[in-house]
Amino acid sequence: MTQLFDRNRALLDGALQAMKTRAFWTPFPEVPSGRFYGETARQDGEVAFSDLLGKSFELNGHPCEYHVGKEQSPWDLDLDVTYPAAPVETLIAASQSAFDDWSETSVEMRVGVLLETLVRLNKMSFLIGHATVHTTGQGFPMAFQAGGPHAQDRGLEAVAAAYAELTATVDRATWEKPQGRIEPIVLEKQWSLVPRGIALAIGCNTFPCWNAYPGLFASLATGNTVIVKPHPMAILPLAITVRVLRQVLEEEGLPADTVLLAADEPEAQVSKDLVQAPEIKLIDYTGSSHFGNWIRSHAGDALVFTEETGVNSVVITGTDDFPGMCANLAFSLALYSGQMCTSPQNIYVPESGIVTNEGHKSFDDVFAGIADAIDELLADPKQAPGICGTIVNPATMDRLHRARSVGRVLRDSGETGIGRSATPLIVAVGEEDMLHKDECFGPVVFGIATRTPEAAIDQAAGLAKEKGAITAALYARDPGLIDTAAKAFCHAGVNLSVNLTGNIYVNQSAAFSDFHVTGANPAGNASLTDTAFVAPRFRRVMVRWPKALDNQSVSARG
Amino acid sequence: MTQLFDRNRALLDGALQAMKTRAFWTPFPEVPSGRFYGETARQDGEVAFSDLLGKSFELNGHPCEYHVGKEQSPWDLDLDVTYPAAPVETLIAASQSAFDDWSETSVEMRVGVLLETLVRLNKMSFLIGHATVHTTGQGFPMAFQAGGPHAQDRGLEAVAAAYAELTATVDRATWEKPQGRIEPIVLEKQWSLVPRGIALAIGCNTFPCWNAYPGLFASLATGNTVIVKPHPMAILPLAITVRVLRQVLEEEGLPADTVLLAADEPEAQVSKDLVQAPEIKLIDYTGSSHFGNWIRSHAGDALVFTEETGVNSVVITGTDDFPGMCANLAFSLALYSGQMCTSPQNIYVPESGIVTNEGHKSFDDVFAGIADAIDELLADPKQAPGICGTIVNPATMDRLHRARSVGRVLRDSGETGIGRSATPLIVAVGEEDMLHKDECFGPVVFGIATRTPEAAIDQAAGLAKEKGAITAALYARDPGLIDTAAKAFCHAGVNLSVNLTGNIYVNQSAAFSDFHVTGANPAGNASLTDTAFVAPRFRRVMVRWPKALDNQSVSARG
Repeated sequence: MTQLFDRNRALLDGALQAMKTRAFWTPFPEVPSGRFYGETARQDGEVAFSDLLGKSFELNGHPCEYHVGKEQSPWDLDLDVTYPAAPVETLIAASQSAFDDWSETSVEMRVGVLLETLVRLNKMSFLIGHATVHTTGQGFPMAFQAGGPHAQDRGLEAVAAAYAELTATVDRATWEKPQGRIEPIVLEKQWSLVPRGIALAIGCNTFPCWNAYPGLFASLATGNTVIVKPHPMAILPLAITVRVLRQVLEEEGLPADTVLLAADEPEAQVSKDLVQAPEIKLIDYTGSSHFGNWIRSHAGDALVFTEETGVNSVVITGTDDFPGMCANLAFSLALYSGQMCTSPQNIYVPESGIVTNEGHKSFDDVFAGIADAIDELLADPKQAPGICGTIVNPATMDRLHRARSVGRVLRDSGETGIGRSATPLIVAVGEEDMLHKDECFGPVVFGIATRTPEAAIDQAAGLAKEKGAITAALYARDPGLIDTAAKAFCHAGVNLSVNLTGNIYVNQSAAFSDFHVTGANPAGNASLTDTAFVAPRFRRVMVRWPKALDNQSVSARG
Repeated sequence: MTQLFDRNRALLDGALQAMKTRAFWTPFPEVPSGRFYGETARQDGEVAFSDLLGKSFELNGHPCEYHVGKEQSPWDLDLDVTYPAAPVETLIAASQSAFDDWSETSVEMRVGVLLETLVRLNKMSFLIGHATVHTTGQGFPMAFQAGGPHAQDRGLEAVAAAYAELTATVDRATWEKPQGRIEPIVLEKQWSLVPRGIALAIGCNTFPCWNAYPGLFASLATGNTVIVKPHPMAILPLAITVRVLRQVLEEEGLPADTVLLAADEPEAQVSKDLVQAPEIKLIDYTGSSHFGNWIRSHAGDALVFTEETGVNSVVITGTDDFPGMCANLAFSLALYSGQMCTSPQNIYVPESGIVTNEGHKSFDDVFAGIADAIDELLADPKQAPGICGTIVNPATMDRLHRARSVGRVLRDSGETGIGRSATPLIVAVGEEDMLHKDECFGPVVFGIATRTPEAAIDQAAGLAKEKGAITAALYARDPGLIDTAAKAFCHAGVNLSVNLTGNIYVNQSAAFSDFHVTGANPAGNASLTDTAFVAPRFRRVMVRWPKALDNQSVSARG
């Protein structure tokens, strides 16, 4: 019964080890190449994706009273995919009927199913890449990574963290209490792992797999059944995920309804009904703080994990590599047109300018350098759409237009030529302006002049503490300033990247090493993946009896 | 700087080991004997206690704008102790001013301070025992254990759990990502442990130390400063605790205000002001669900851990040792007059009676056996007060009088002869009655006849799931029934004790082995001490930089 666990044991052990050492490790190659994925993988993925279009997506045995689906590709491809759907009550009843079997399955069996699922998903990374491209609007290279191997890394990380916690203490013990000169008291004790109930994983539009996998896999590993509620515009990547999970479950004789899909359409979303259902005991959510607040006040006794709104900042006080800095920032700003939760939004530069390896640079020089680097990065019309992707939500275009008028435009936004696109807009605003003090999701960058380098750090860290932030970047030559910034962003609960140049970016968060979201500021309480993210998803319940009675079988579960 | 850590290392290692194996272990002897505590310990404790009476309690350097204190001993001793006090804003400001130093102190230093404090508290267990007697109304043997070594065990458990979690991952790593044929990307990463902020530990009247130590020590170990808010009638044991903590802190050159006392009086409690203060980021609370609900809706973004109201049940379906069962239950019911969160309240017995080693026993026979055992236990007027203690809250007497009239009295409550006392009342009620379906705190036991043994299990487990429960007990001869009960109480999230006889009781919860409160039913979300109790009390925040720049010092903390 633990064949899948044994088969994938090395995967688990590798993850457990890496999560302690935080050194680089991944079992899932991030390069979309036949060298890793097999010679035909690329073409197989394209065919598999085409086969899904214009059809009703098949989920064997899934509750289905009607079909829904209005996804539209920001790349102008007709998707026309629909999904089996059923009322919330039906989904909850189906989840409840799977609950006993799944929750009483051994840890090894559960973890085996999840590891096997991740391995199979990895082999489908090209398919998932295309599904991610046409729901998120990302370019293919990024969609492949973020929807495929990088999401699988985060899923594996959650499974490993859960496994470590599930097995942290014994499940049976003999407790022998000395009684001085008389016979000791001897109790046998046995613990069951009791999951919370039905979990809800609410996906987002921009990173359907990457942001949903941690909660999904953590809840499953700890014995909860899960209802996956994708963003109505990004269902396909999660529908594929649910299908693979259900297939592996069925093969192992476990209830497929352990994982359900709650697909919906923009005009008739089911999130609120699900959140308010008393049977839902765990919620993982990625999205705006606005809806995050609604969830918190309507979730009853459900445990809520979130990644929410934030304002990420870059502080530039000096650099030993001005072109390297500009090129690095250009990529961070252009990548997926600022639609990452890790994308920088505000760039703080002292009004007197900075010292660099190329001499003094004024405030305007700095932004001219960044703007030129963006222009250069996006000069090739074949490359630009792959980097910027498209703008997935039309409301982002409105925000972009509004932002253009609030200050002095340092670089105007343009188009890449394909789909609904927008390259980074850079606008100089004053600290007294307000727009940059909230998240302005999309390819909008604010340049803010500060009186001193220290003021730049103070303002950026202060905003992070108040409004939340997931990343921060600093460019500095002075070790004292680096220390000051490290302390300030530490207090603000933001991970800080210092003096990044070359092929590593502030936006990037690597599983098994970087904790994504610290939980120490308003940008979310779900730190991927620390113990606090997995430990409260289940409980330990004991039965104890005198050892003298041990010939009596006592078994609470299974 | 880690001398205290090194000195007490064996204590920590022992705890860490025991928490994995869950075998019996304690460094703090539970027997109040000169053999363990020194020949003069008993007398020294009495003298030290007398020295505190009729005075203002000294807390060196503690904020003090006035004195408060209206504790009254349920044993009719004049206490007349007052405590330094200050407005909530003053306490919060003092806690904030200690925060940076304490939160940036190394894990080893912090843990060393806490271990040393526990060792010193242990040596003061006789004093703490007397302080506990005269605030909780417990008899001395119990007060010594519950206020002394058993509370210290739970404190140590919390420190060890926190230490394990704080040190679970490295604090510095080199992350080297291969780049095919070109040079790898190499980042240096460093993590700081960032506590949540100021923690509030709200104590209860009945177990001031035992219930407050886990949250207090867990919050401190993870770098938070703590304001201890005792129950206004049970300040002294926690004031002694705060004094020892502050002494050790001072000796180590750390701010004494890391731990503050928020003493108050019944008519002017400060709990609500503290809970609502936005600076409070962590709350540990033991008490009624009524106030627990108030806390949850007024705590803002503070993390709340609770132990709350519940209804503990015993199910009797048969026994191989009728006298042993009756004697065991008699002690469980009489001990501290049912004022333990682990005391049984409802006893379910099939209406057709049970099979025992003494033949068939009717419903009434069973309770007659228990009543006789209680009478025998309390027959000696010198022993009875030590077992039953006193009734700490006058409202408990009112509940007792009301309960007497709701059904057929199977054993009437009596007095022990000392203080405000009440021995167990046993009343037969029908399942259709309501009073037994809520917590009726105090020496009130309801006997409930059920149609079958299975119905007894169903009703007891169902009530636990709905209203919460911390303990459950079963007496049964049939292995099938034991399995059924184990499953039912497991689903209800209650620890179950089966067929206890002799000197081990359902009320008892041993640190390092028994998780106290499962978190899986409404009786609380704080499981003592699992990882979920400590992990969210702090966060990890990273700073990363290219290895090439490693000659630049980057230090976020300290």
